[in-house]
Amino acid sequence: MNIKNEFENEKSNYETYKAKGISLDISRGKPNKSQIDYIASVFKAAENKNDFYVKRIGIDKSDAGNYGLPNGISELRNLFSDILDVPVNNIIIGGNSSLSLMYDLIVINLLFGNPQSRRPWKDEVKIKFLCPCPGYDRHFAMIKNFGFEMIPVPMTPNGPDMDIIEKLVSEDDSIRGIWCVPIYSNPEGYVYSYETVMRLAKMTCSAPDFRIFWDNAYFAHHLDPNRINTIPDILKLCADHGNEDRVYEFASTSKISFPGAGIAVIASSKKNIAQIQDQFKYKTIGNDKMNMWRHSLVFKTKADVYAHMAKLSEFNRPKFKATNDILESELKDYGRYVHFTHPEGGYFLSFNTMKGCAKRTYALCKAAGLIITTVGDTYPNSFDPDDSNIRIAPTYAEMDDLVQAMHLFACCVKLAILEKLNL
Amino acid sequence: MNIKNEFENEKSNYETYKAKGISLDISRGKPNKSQIDYIASVFKAAENKNDFYVKRIGIDKSDAGNYGLPNGISELRNLFSDILDVPVNNIIIGGNSSLSLMYDLIVINLLFGNPQSRRPWKDEVKIKFLCPCPGYDRHFAMIKNFGFEMIPVPMTPNGPDMDIIEKLVSEDDSIRGIWCVPIYSNPEGYVYSYETVMRLAKMTCSAPDFRIFWDNAYFAHHLDPNRINTIPDILKLCADHGNEDRVYEFASTSKISFPGAGIAVIASSKKNIAQIQDQFKYKTIGNDKMNMWRHSLVFKTKADVYAHMAKLSEFNRPKFKATNDILESELKDYGRYVHFTHPEGGYFLSFNTMKGCAKRTYALCKAAGLIITTVGDTYPNSFDPDDSNIRIAPTYAEMDDLVQAMHLFACCVKLAILEKLNL
Repeated sequence: MNIKNEFENEKSNYETYKAKGISLDISRGKPNKSQIDYIASVFKAAENKNDFYVKRIGIDKSDAGNYGLPNGISELRNLFSDILDVPVNNIIIGGNSSLSLMYDLIVINLLFGNPQSRRPWKDEVKIKFLCPCPGYDRHFAMIKNFGFEMIPVPMTPNGPDMDIIEKLVSEDDSIRGIWCVPIYSNPEGYVYSYETVMRLAKMTCSAPDFRIFWDNAYFAHHLDPNRINTIPDILKLCADHGNEDRVYEFASTSKISFPGAGIAVIASSKKNIAQIQDQFKYKTIGNDKMNMWRHSLVFKTKADVYAHMAKLSEFNRPKFKATNDILESELKDYGRYVHFTHPEGGYFLSFNTMKGCAKRTYALCKAAGLIITTVGDTYPNSFDPDDSNIRIAPTYAEMDDLVQAMHLFACCVKLAILEKLNL
Repeated sequence: MNIKNEFENEKSNYETYKAKGISLDISRGKPNKSQIDYIASVFKAAENKNDFYVKRIGIDKSDAGNYGLPNGISELRNLFSDILDVPVNNIIIGGNSSLSLMYDLIVINLLFGNPQSRRPWKDEVKIKFLCPCPGYDRHFAMIKNFGFEMIPVPMTPNGPDMDIIEKLVSEDDSIRGIWCVPIYSNPEGYVYSYETVMRLAKMTCSAPDFRIFWDNAYFAHHLDPNRINTIPDILKLCADHGNEDRVYEFASTSKISFPGAGIAVIASSKKNIAQIQDQFKYKTIGNDKMNMWRHSLVFKTKADVYAHMAKLSEFNRPKFKATNDILESELKDYGRYVHFTHPEGGYFLSFNTMKGCAKRTYALCKAAGLIITTVGDTYPNSFDPDDSNIRIAPTYAEMDDLVQAMHLFACCVKLAILEKLNL
């Protein structure tokens, strides 16, 4: 292509977009209003059908509207036992946020350590965490706040680079944990392979109290309900290799029922769960059982959850397809400069532009009224050494807006590259 | 009275109770099922009337069913601003548990300190807390878990003994906090006087980062709706005396709406709230806005809350009266040995038996099938030096059961005293 012509061309396109006075935000992984409306209708129907407010007593014989059951109602513990393939006694139903559970678990490790700790993490000279990246900005921000050192580990389509991880954890006993989003990773949408999960489960860690923070956020969030990716059961694999306390597994219904008003879950080994229960008893009399009860009326079985998620995929599938199609077509001549992922589930895709062009792309988008995820935030300390990665969240916008946003985004990507090539 | 005769008499009564095979629990401050049923009917009506699941957008223009608003919805922030007489920006709506907020605040102080701290509390040689007692067992258990030293301070009908408190906090800079339940204290049901609150607000503390944990759990929980106790606004009094960051105030709807499924609130100074917001942003994307929205439909104004609480007082008033009447009549000859409180609100009353008799009373109750709050738990480290205090929670039992329980309890009190006198 003729760079000079192409540059003038895209510059003119960009000015046209800018003149339109666009105001769009594709920065966060939020479901669209139509999806929330649908979920609301499902919950409303279930409440009415089951006389929710009157019949509040389930298999625990405990009133959902009164104190009790610090581990949550058995209906939901059984459900997640089935979904995660973990014994019911190894499951605690939490509040509305799995992120809070992760924060709580780090606090417990800081103040008390875990069953394998020589001392509380707060009393260690240094705590380091492995951070496969690009990754989830909130994971990184949380541990930065606690002063942990973050070690970036490159992601591959099969999960984080296990050669690097095995070497690091075997050599450095200040490495105490790793963040993992094993299925439809944030932001690439990659799915960990069996080999990756197996190697995480059996690797030799120098720190006896090393923990995998297994954020199984998208276990049922497939775009094509007929092509379902699954991940191996890491808790079982760890136990098989004598590392049964290695994993804290987190899940939630945040993108199954209501974002911010769903149900969070933690699953772990018997010993870890006992320690967590022993701490949580000081923290709360129990989590919101009315909301658990409500969820148990909608989701009685694992099959109910997957049928519901097949329905929800209809909201997001067209948006991922439109995003992909626009990027493919708009950037067909830029294949040597850009690369983006084609997730089969989750809420994000990952876009890598030419090195040194991501921040400029962000600025161009912003100046034209389009907010994308802050560039850099997908890396520890908000620093992408290549200034290349951009997270795209196609789900929240209305389709017309998304189409407009992706055309504008592609234009900004091209313009930033052409500016650089033009130098 | 003839102790020998009375002893034989009560022993015979006790055996009669024991033969009945009673199984009752008056240990915890839980509302009765009829009250939860009533509350459920109120919530159901409000959901239906307001088309709850369809209309989810309020004055913030934010969908309650999607992520957003980390401080909570403005409807509830405004409501608690009005109830607690605190500017709306100084209020955060939390999750379902004020106890969790207290735990979170202690964690923040441990890991980071507060704006006046020289260093995080974890790095201090010793952290001491003042514990007015008898007091709330969960307050004491929480800080015992964190390794704090607890200093018991005697309660009076006007609140904790301020002479002792002023002396201690002025002399010992390792004292970093105090637990207060200022209205209808747990377990006595005492109400702090204006003088007590004023002295707490203006006292000179040796530790610059001293904090009052103001657990305003029963602000609207009056037994007689026509005789409403109120407490002075401690946040304002502190600010008036140059100690504006001294207080964390907590409240909840746990015994207004659903215990364990209500809404918790924290109110504090501008500086404290800014620090709390800065931490909470790492912990969660937001608390459950659907539940906030639901509550905002039921409780639109402060007057709504008080009208609702006047209605709820009908459930508990007869139970407190029955408890009082039975104890008065059964123990009329034991006035020199026992003392109990006559609360005008809250969920408990406090019973002091003859020194050295509380544990025996508990054991006698238990052997006859009646569970009362574990004796000692109303004191730090579960140690009541007088072995005298017993907390009674009359609300949860059905009236017939409560009457039976209180007769049995009185019998056990007498028997334990007579055993001792008989020695």
